[in-house]
Amino acid sequence: LKRFPLLLGIDIGGTKLALSLGSAEGEVVRHFRRPIEASGDARRDVARIAEDARRLLVDAGVDRSRVEAVGISAPGPVDVRAGELVEPPNLPGWGRVPLVAWVEAELGGPVAIENDANAAVLAEWRFGAGRGLRDLVYLTMSTGVGGGLILDGRLYRGPRGNAGELGHILLEADGLRCACGLAGCFEAYAGGAAWAKRLRDETPAGSAAAVHAGGSEQVTAKHLVAAALDGDAFALAEFARWREYVARGIATIAFAFAPERIVLGTIAVAAGEDLCFEPLRARVRELVWPAISDGLEIVPAGLGSRLAELAGLCAALEAIDATVAG
Amino acid sequence: LKRFPLLLGIDIGGTKLALSLGSAEGEVVRHFRRPIEASGDARRDVARIAEDARRLLVDAGVDRSRVEAVGISAPGPVDVRAGELVEPPNLPGWGRVPLVAWVEAELGGPVAIENDANAAVLAEWRFGAGRGLRDLVYLTMSTGVGGGLILDGRLYRGPRGNAGELGHILLEADGLRCACGLAGCFEAYAGGAAWAKRLRDETPAGSAAAVHAGGSEQVTAKHLVAAALDGDAFALAEFARWREYVARGIATIAFAFAPERIVLGTIAVAAGEDLCFEPLRARVRELVWPAISDGLEIVPAGLGSRLAELAGLCAALEAIDATVAG
Repeated sequence: LKRFPLLLGIDIGGTKLALSLGSAEGEVVRHFRRPIEASGDARRDVARIAEDARRLLVDAGVDRSRVEAVGISAPGPVDVRAGELVEPPNLPGWGRVPLVAWVEAELGGPVAIENDANAAVLAEWRFGAGRGLRDLVYLTMSTGVGGGLILDGRLYRGPRGNAGELGHILLEADGLRCACGLAGCFEAYAGGAAWAKRLRDETPAGSAAAVHAGGSEQVTAKHLVAAALDGDAFALAEFARWREYVARGIATIAFAFAPERIVLGTIAVAAGEDLCFEPLRARVRELVWPAISDGLEIVPAGLGSRLAELAGLCAALEAIDATVAG
Repeated sequence: LKRFPLLLGIDIGGTKLALSLGSAEGEVVRHFRRPIEASGDARRDVARIAEDARRLLVDAGVDRSRVEAVGISAPGPVDVRAGELVEPPNLPGWGRVPLVAWVEAELGGPVAIENDANAAVLAEWRFGAGRGLRDLVYLTMSTGVGGGLILDGRLYRGPRGNAGELGHILLEADGLRCACGLAGCFEAYAGGAAWAKRLRDETPAGSAAAVHAGGSEQVTAKHLVAAALDGDAFALAEFARWREYVARGIATIAFAFAPERIVLGTIAVAAGEDLCFEPLRARVRELVWPAISDGLEIVPAGLGSRLAELAGLCAALEAIDATVAG
């Protein structure tokens, strides 16, 4: 613990807060989680997060002066340069929040912020399923579909910090309405929230999915995985449909970036090899030139529940890199 | 002429060869063009190109020793590391051609090769519509649709040299057959060859497009521009259809890369503001979040007929950079 400088990570999810204290090598020495619900008062919510962070340091017996940087992973859109959240749909009521300035005022600096998909790709790249690669795409695949890009050995944010919004690749012109307001987005077909909405209407009352969920209107991708493993026909058909759209999104990503590896998060990890990866890889090979698909690995995320802790630390690491570069 | 080192550029198109002798600053001191037709014997075709290149040097009164590097721009797919063309569909009969090795044997090195879209984005970035930017996407929009990417101030080729194949973004699942063998590619809707094929079948005999072309079966995008400027209803409807697909492709490119500028080549340049850019920008704003579309410029290529000369020189410049870096 004394050898290395420490980093403080703050991962703000749509439903959970994760705080972590750890090293640049990804050793988490202390962490803390609690549910989070955005109140109408973002200032107060952030003050509570800071309070929890200070207590984490006290509990770890670590003085603030030993913490070299604070990193925040937060749901997008994030304006990285301004250090602000820009009306994140998954934190209703927060509006435009100058999160970096507020956290700096509460905890001291330097403080850096990344959107959750970028923090996740950094974490998978440094410590998970993307270790050692120079070119990597990460797809979040939970409530929504987010993208994180490692290109030529560094995080690619684009000129205004919003590159890699891969959930909004246009899959069907005039297609399903997306939570973002547009129509036909990848996320509207492959995102967990959109899928859950569809499942509320489509799930037959007698299906294993409905049984697992305790009612058709409660079914989410998670129950669908359990039902599919039971061999439930409805669940298997739903996964086939979902995979088809995931394959189409990945085909476009492959032609655009031709990465070495595409790492898929939450829902894909839960679905596993049989329901997701094996048939998905076969379908992608039909939709992409061999010159590109032969060199492309499609794999599950490797960090599991450790992602939240490491995402925050990775955002903090970027703060240090920015300090050095600046 | 004596102040700067010279570069030799070789631009191999589907129908034209362009040779150029010039500087790293884009001053072309001598150039030469002729039609090119791939014979069954690639070795002989390349020997003829080398012969023309030697004559260009003689005519310019420049000794080979003064030429610092040779650059080749060629139709993809190009294996940049191996220095080979990989069965380019636009050079039938060439097969797999070790072009860098052959040109080096004929003319001496260093020799570098880029696919035409990458050479074009380098040329537009250094000397044309992308000057001074760090993040830029170029779309060729001629026979096919090719993509070139400048990301973070350098050409992005991807780990195996085939990133940015933006003509094969999936626009319609199970859609029109593309020249590449897949279905529903951007190029199958927006590329010149695909469009010409459609126009052969669809153009009414009495339309201005048919008149300009001297027959429905001869109509290409070029005749369609002339007919649209005459106010021909068929031509205007065809442009509306083409723009819709271009807008959809650009929407996905915008979400993936969020570049500062997208530069459109040949057909878009010929169509101009009224037929292409003005309505295209409006449609893209409907398909892309304001946070991304507000910062995105969609503009015509700036180099016109100078592109072929400068593309070859820019490939040569990359050869020098590679030498320095290596």
